[in-house]
Amino acid sequence: MGAINIQEKLNLFSDHWSPKKVGELNGQQILLAKLKGEFIWHTNENEDEFFMVIKGSLDIEFKDKTITLHKGEFFIVPRGVEHKPIAKEEVHVLLFEPLSIKHTGNVMADITVENYERI
Amino acid sequence: MGAINIQEKLNLFSDHWSPKKVGELNGQQILLAKLKGEFIWHTNENEDEFFMVIKGSLDIEFKDKTITLHKGEFFIVPRGVEHKPIAKEEVHVLLFEPLSIKHTGNVMADITVENYERI
Repeated sequence: MGAINIQEKLNLFSDHWSPKKVGELNGQQILLAKLKGEFIWHTNENEDEFFMVIKGSLDIEFKDKTITLHKGEFFIVPRGVEHKPIAKEEVHVLLFEPLSIKHTGNVMADITVENYERI
Repeated sequence: MGAINIQEKLNLFSDHWSPKKVGELNGQQILLAKLKGEFIWHTNENEDEFFMVIKGSLDIEFKDKTITLHKGEFFIVPRGVEHKPIAKEEVHVLLFEPLSIKHTGNVMADITVENYERI
């Protein structure tokens, strides 16, 4: 295995809200995702979730505030905290999270992806 | 807490081979480091280690090959594999690894940092 180029991996897919797995280590996974529009309110009861923006600007709504992440910025959503990502324009993100995490946390919805594709 | 800007964090230090902690989640840590010159051969017996290059080009030497990581590329060094990072010019990296990891793995050296500063 050699170096993994993030942009080359991003070029392999175009669907939104469907994270792709690009690495796995220490019980955690590295995901890349393209986001556009509104996700759903959900909570990951047992997993903290790292979002890093590679392209665009991502809003993460919480019940008491909204955090905006621009390119080159990251935020860790603590476990147990209800949140809703919103991408007004297309956003590309890198995620670090445990293998145990569920896409939409405590909620099942049409948008829910049960198994992340490995690319 | 709000968004964390990676470049702003990198602007806070200039020492080489001394990772700074910028986040913690799920028993793992997010580190930023500036590298220049040769590190030492070492092995992390129980931890896989994620290197992502933010600036410059990093060589990671293994006993049987060398992997070169350019900006926007990452590599996961598997646990138990002896390796030696080399930065011919200054390199900025983001690392994702367990809290339990030791800076120089199975080796203690003058370069070893025992506790990573939080910035």
